[in-house]
Amino acid sequence: MNYQRFFEEAIDQIHAERRYRVFADLERIVGKFPRAIWRANGKAEEITVWCSNDYLGMGQHPDVVDAMQKAAGNMGTGAGGTRNISGNNHPLVELELELADLHGKEAGLVFTSGFVSNEAAISTIARLLPNCLILSDELNHASMIEGVRRSGAEKKIFRHNDVAHLESLLQAAGRERAKLIVFESVYSMDGDIAPIEAIADLAEKYNAMTYIDEVHAVGMYGPRGGGITEREGLAHRIDIIEGTLAKAFGTLGGYITGTREVIDAVRSYAPGFIFTTALPPAIAAATTASIRHLKNSQAERDAQQRQATHAKQVLADAGLPVMESPTHIVPILVGDPELCKMASDRLLGVHGLYIQPINYPTVPRGTERLRITPTPFHTDELIAELKLALVETWNALGIPYRGAGHTEVAQSDRIIPLLVPKSGG
Amino acid sequence: MNYQRFFEEAIDQIHAERRYRVFADLERIVGKFPRAIWRANGKAEEITVWCSNDYLGMGQHPDVVDAMQKAAGNMGTGAGGTRNISGNNHPLVELELELADLHGKEAGLVFTSGFVSNEAAISTIARLLPNCLILSDELNHASMIEGVRRSGAEKKIFRHNDVAHLESLLQAAGRERAKLIVFESVYSMDGDIAPIEAIADLAEKYNAMTYIDEVHAVGMYGPRGGGITEREGLAHRIDIIEGTLAKAFGTLGGYITGTREVIDAVRSYAPGFIFTTALPPAIAAATTASIRHLKNSQAERDAQQRQATHAKQVLADAGLPVMESPTHIVPILVGDPELCKMASDRLLGVHGLYIQPINYPTVPRGTERLRITPTPFHTDELIAELKLALVETWNALGIPYRGAGHTEVAQSDRIIPLLVPKSGG
Repeated sequence: MNYQRFFEEAIDQIHAERRYRVFADLERIVGKFPRAIWRANGKAEEITVWCSNDYLGMGQHPDVVDAMQKAAGNMGTGAGGTRNISGNNHPLVELELELADLHGKEAGLVFTSGFVSNEAAISTIARLLPNCLILSDELNHASMIEGVRRSGAEKKIFRHNDVAHLESLLQAAGRERAKLIVFESVYSMDGDIAPIEAIADLAEKYNAMTYIDEVHAVGMYGPRGGGITEREGLAHRIDIIEGTLAKAFGTLGGYITGTREVIDAVRSYAPGFIFTTALPPAIAAATTASIRHLKNSQAERDAQQRQATHAKQVLADAGLPVMESPTHIVPILVGDPELCKMASDRLLGVHGLYIQPINYPTVPRGTERLRITPTPFHTDELIAELKLALVETWNALGIPYRGAGHTEVAQSDRIIPLLVPKSGG
Repeated sequence: MNYQRFFEEAIDQIHAERRYRVFADLERIVGKFPRAIWRANGKAEEITVWCSNDYLGMGQHPDVVDAMQKAAGNMGTGAGGTRNISGNNHPLVELELELADLHGKEAGLVFTSGFVSNEAAISTIARLLPNCLILSDELNHASMIEGVRRSGAEKKIFRHNDVAHLESLLQAAGRERAKLIVFESVYSMDGDIAPIEAIADLAEKYNAMTYIDEVHAVGMYGPRGGGITEREGLAHRIDIIEGTLAKAFGTLGGYITGTREVIDAVRSYAPGFIFTTALPPAIAAATTASIRHLKNSQAERDAQQRQATHAKQVLADAGLPVMESPTHIVPILVGDPELCKMASDRLLGVHGLYIQPINYPTVPRGTERLRITPTPFHTDELIAELKLALVETWNALGIPYRGAGHTEVAQSDRIIPLLVPKSGG
C-alpha cells in the first residue's frame, strides 16, 4: 500500500469525473451586501454574490453585528468548554428559549451546525425508540441521510412528497411499531414545499412521530419567521422542528425544538452534542438579535419574496429555463455538469456575478443547475444585470433555452421544464 | 407506542443512574478571567471557573477579541454558505494556511468543531483506503470512536499507550494491508502523554498511516504551540495532525493538517464537511490572531505550566488524591459518582468555585473525579483558596484522602493513587 499514491489517485478520480471543486475565495462587505471581494490568480475584484444562503442579509444587519461585537467584548470569543463542562454560556441559554418560543415548543437545543443537529437528533431519537422504523423522503438532505444511517434503525424511503406512498409504508408497519417520519419543509435545490398537513394527518392516523427540517424556511416564512409550519398553522402538529442559524438568521449553528422530554433525551444521549464545545456567546447573542428582529419585522420577508418573484419573471421572460418553485429559490436548469461549471466560471470571470454550479451528488445527474437566491438586497437593477449576463452566457456556451431540449427531463404544464429528481441527497 | 411516555422513561433512567446532567448557566467576564457570573434559582453571583478548556485564557485576549469585532464589523456575523457555495471566506483561507504552517504540513482543513473534524476525517480516510484496518487506542475520545465506527472499516483496539500490544496487531495485519493508527497526544481526562516516537517507529516499520489528536496540546506545547509533536520534533513523522480551535486558541472549530492530497481527499469526500456552513470570518480571524500570538509568545505556556505544577504540589501537600499527570491537567480522584456530584455542588454553592464532576461515561466507573485546569490566570492566591475549599469539602463529605481507600484502584509508586482506566470514551 502506497498511501500517497492512493490519495493522489482518489483526487485524480474526482478530476476525471469533473467533480473537483474549487472554493471561491470571498470577502463579504458589510453595508454593500450582496457585494464581495473575490480573490483569484493574485488579483482581487468586487463581485455580486447571487447564491448566498444568508437569505435575508441578516449577517450584516447592524443589530446583529452589534450584538456579536458587544458579546465578544464582554464575554470573549469562545465558550471555553462543552455544554456540560463550563461552556454553557448565558446567551446560549437565552437563544434556546427564543427558539422554543419561535416554534411554540417547550424546549430547544442548539448544535454547532445544522448538519450535526440533523445527524445527532435523528440518529439519537431513532436509536432510543425500540425497533424504530424511519420513513424518509427520497430528497432529504445529506445530514438527514447520515442521521438515518447512524441510527442503525430500519428505514423506508418514500417518493418525494408522495403522501400515498408514505401511507402505504405506514400501513404496512402498523400502529404499534415505533415510526419516525423525517422530511423537509422547503427542499433547497428545487425550492418546492412538502405537503405538511397531509403528512401530519397520516402521522396521527398511524401513530408516528414527525421530524421536519425547516432550514430553508425559518426566518423567511410565517408571520414571525417560524417557517412553513408557522405559516400554515401546523407547528403544533409536528413533534420535532429542526432549523439552522446559518442561513436566514445569518450566523452559525443548528437546532431542534420539541417537547421537554424529547429535547432532554437528545441532550443527554447524543455524543455529537455532549462532546462538542458550545457555541460562543457572541454567536448566540448575534443570533438572538437576528431572530428577535425577524419576529417583529415583516419587511425582509416581503422584500425577499418580491425580488424572488421579480427575478423569476424577468429570467423566464428572457426564455431562460427557470424551474418553477413556490419559494425564494430560483433554480435554472443547465442539465450538464461541464456546461454548468463553464457557465458559472463565465458569469464570475466575465460578468463579475458569482453563482456556484450545482452538480451531482447535490442534485441528480442530468439536472445540473444554477441555483439563484435573490435577497431583499438584490435590487431590480441587479436583476436586470443578471438577466443580461445569463443570456450572454447561454448564447456563448450554447446552453438550451426553455423548452429547447432536455429530452431526459419530463415535461408538464406545471413547470417549464419539469424537473423530476431521481435520487436523494 | 406512547412516544411521550417513552421519552419520559428514558430521562427517568438517566436520573435513576445518577447521570442526569444540569448545565451551569455561566457568563464569563472579559478582563476578569477566570471569573464568571453564575445564574441559578433566580440569583446571579460571581464565581471562579476551575475547569475551563480555554486553557490559556486566549478567549479574552485583547488581540483576539479585537480581531473578532473587526471582522464582524467588516464582513458580518456569518459565512453565508457552505465552503463550496459562497461560504469560503478569506479569513478562513488564511487560517488554514496558518494551521498548515503551525504543524509544518502542506495543507490544513477547518471544520465547525473538533468532534466533526475527527469524525469526518477518520471515517473518510479509512473508508477510502481499501480494506483498511484501524488501530485505535482504547482511551480515544468519543469523536474518534464515532469516526472509526462510521468508516465501516475493521478496527482493533490497543491497550492504552501499549506499544507492544500495538505492534502485535500491526504484525498480524502485515505490511501490505492498509492500516491507520489513531491516537491522542495528551489524553484529556488523565493528562498523560502517548509514546509518539515509538508509535511513529512502528508505523514506519509496518507501513501504517498515523493520525494524532492534539486537541489538548495545541497552543500549549512546543516552542510555537504546535503541540507535543512539535515539542518532541515528531510532527513530520505523523501523517495527519488534528487539533481544535476551541480550547487553547479560545474560539470555535476543529481542523486537520497533512499532505495536500490527503487533505484534498477529505475536503472532497466527507459529507460532514461538504454539507456544512463554513465557519464565520469573525471566528476565523480571531483564531488566526490567537495562533499568531501563541506562535511568538512563550509567556502563556510558561505561566500555565508553572501554575499547574504549583496547584498539583499544593493540593498533594494537603493530602488530596491528585492523580499524577505530566501535563497541565490536574485530576483529583473521588471514585464515586454521587460523592463527585456532591463535591462539585458544594464547591460551587458554598465556596463559589466551579469544577464540573467527571463521571461515567466520560471516565470509567470507579474513577469519577474532579478535573482541574489551572490557567496562567489562576494565581497562587486562587490556588490557596482552592486548596482550602477542597479540604473543607473532602472533610464535610467524607471523601477519602490520598492512599486512604479506593481498593478498586490499583496502586504503584509512580502515581498516587494509580489510575488504571478500563474503557475508552
